[in-house]
Amino acid sequence: VSSTQPLFDRVAIIGIGLIGSSLALALRQSGLAGSIVCGDASEQHVKMAMELELVDEAMTDNAQAVRDADLVILSTPVGTLGGVAESIGPHLKKGCIVIDVGSVKQAVISAVAPHIPANAFYIPCHPIAGTEESGPEAGFAELFQERWCLLTPLPGTDEAALDKVRQVWRKCGAKVEVMEPATHDRVLAMVSHLPHGVAFTAIGAADALAGDLKQEVIRYAGSSFRDFTRVAASDPIMWRDIFLNNREAVLDILRRFKTDLAALEQEIVRGDGAALERRFEHGRALRRGVTGGRFVEPPVLKDAGK
Amino acid sequence: VSSTQPLFDRVAIIGIGLIGSSLALALRQSGLAGSIVCGDASEQHVKMAMELELVDEAMTDNAQAVRDADLVILSTPVGTLGGVAESIGPHLKKGCIVIDVGSVKQAVISAVAPHIPANAFYIPCHPIAGTEESGPEAGFAELFQERWCLLTPLPGTDEAALDKVRQVWRKCGAKVEVMEPATHDRVLAMVSHLPHGVAFTAIGAADALAGDLKQEVIRYAGSSFRDFTRVAASDPIMWRDIFLNNREAVLDILRRFKTDLAALEQEIVRGDGAALERRFEHGRALRRGVTGGRFVEPPVLKDAGK
Repeated sequence: VSSTQPLFDRVAIIGIGLIGSSLALALRQSGLAGSIVCGDASEQHVKMAMELELVDEAMTDNAQAVRDADLVILSTPVGTLGGVAESIGPHLKKGCIVIDVGSVKQAVISAVAPHIPANAFYIPCHPIAGTEESGPEAGFAELFQERWCLLTPLPGTDEAALDKVRQVWRKCGAKVEVMEPATHDRVLAMVSHLPHGVAFTAIGAADALAGDLKQEVIRYAGSSFRDFTRVAASDPIMWRDIFLNNREAVLDILRRFKTDLAALEQEIVRGDGAALERRFEHGRALRRGVTGGRFVEPPVLKDAGK
Repeated sequence: VSSTQPLFDRVAIIGIGLIGSSLALALRQSGLAGSIVCGDASEQHVKMAMELELVDEAMTDNAQAVRDADLVILSTPVGTLGGVAESIGPHLKKGCIVIDVGSVKQAVISAVAPHIPANAFYIPCHPIAGTEESGPEAGFAELFQERWCLLTPLPGTDEAALDKVRQVWRKCGAKVEVMEPATHDRVLAMVSHLPHGVAFTAIGAADALAGDLKQEVIRYAGSSFRDFTRVAASDPIMWRDIFLNNREAVLDILRRFKTDLAALEQEIVRGDGAALERRFEHGRALRRGVTGGRFVEPPVLKDAGK
């Protein structure tokens, strides 16, 4: 029994993948939840959630899962959040807090908010955390430790509800910030969505090389190619939904990137050594955090045993 | 005193940066070199090479440094190698082996080979190893451990000389392969030069964002952006010379990459979820080494103490 008074008698987690299962474990450790129930469309996930003792109850019926819950966490893929919200909306307890954990915020808010009744509180969240793995067996309580969690509350959000959500994430170890949904989407397009799109594209280009050359490329793909493409290893459905749902911001960043890439190409074509040197010097300075602010290096994940 | 019989009475290292200083330390440990001398245009480097006890002798005069050397290692930036070869050529001992460590091979061979006299042996090498640091103080003996070193010998190269060069790299811990210079340049354009160009470009795009947004981007640049741009932290002069000297192969890969990136963009514009999912699924499979060969993960660097 934890010394912390449960903040919520009953927590419902809808979607018990990497984020959902990690939240279940972190919430259990935190003592913030009296009991935890999960709903998931996959019977296999439901079975595993019970076997792994992630939750107290698990079921495939989301409407039933949210009944009597004081906190409902929507952790299904971004593209499904609207449908999930619609199906649970009529079954939410009065005064219940609903959060989502989607990697895109404007499109998710448009899809979810209309389905949350006026007597419940909806607070969009985005914990910037993940691994290359997915599914209920991938979860671990420390996933959010020292990671950012961005909250993008709607205008006029209840302060007490917002404060409770802050407490949830802080207890899970995250650093919490409040941000405008539009700013969130533009920032993430740059720091996360562009790198993913580019890494997938580089891997595709390597794959498209002719037979012998491709084999050599695969053999000598060393640490730089590995670091560069590590971001491309996570869940394809998640990434499909991110690109579909953050279309405008991603396309804007892609256009800037393509313009700059064309400029690099022209410098190479011209053999313009001075321009290339300036470009690389500037890039290194930025990378090292000399110019302007620092590119923040998040602390190393703490040991699971701590 | 090492149990290994010195393979070379005298080794000259021209350019005592990260690679040169690491080779000096590794060669000393290996017992392959009777004595090690370095030549470097920078007086500061010469001073540090002596202070750090990297070599037995250090001087700014390269022609003097190579005198009586049985092995000469050219480890200056790619763009300077032709000039360095020209200045040392007349002073090389008969039967001397000359190697370079440039990241590009065809252009380097064209620049260096004409200056090596017929009674010496020139063998182009490329150890695929490096860190974010540069200069003589950045060197460490284990830099080449478990890393690839690609040799791109010219037609008719003396087998005994080639075998000695193999031994040098193997004693430094590297895995040695022989390859055609043109193949080398195309493979490296894909696994190394493209990722660097793209990472520098992404950093530049982040830097070009308007003030407030840029600050947010810098703040929330998490592990994916950090991994993705790590490759952009190394020496700007080295990268300028690589892009100038591997122009054709880099431009070819850049064109393929741009075509694929435009296809991704069009899928986003169209909102083509099925195409995006296929693309990301395929990328993940390739990244994980399921389709075709494995993207090789090199072993972790051994402890310096071993």
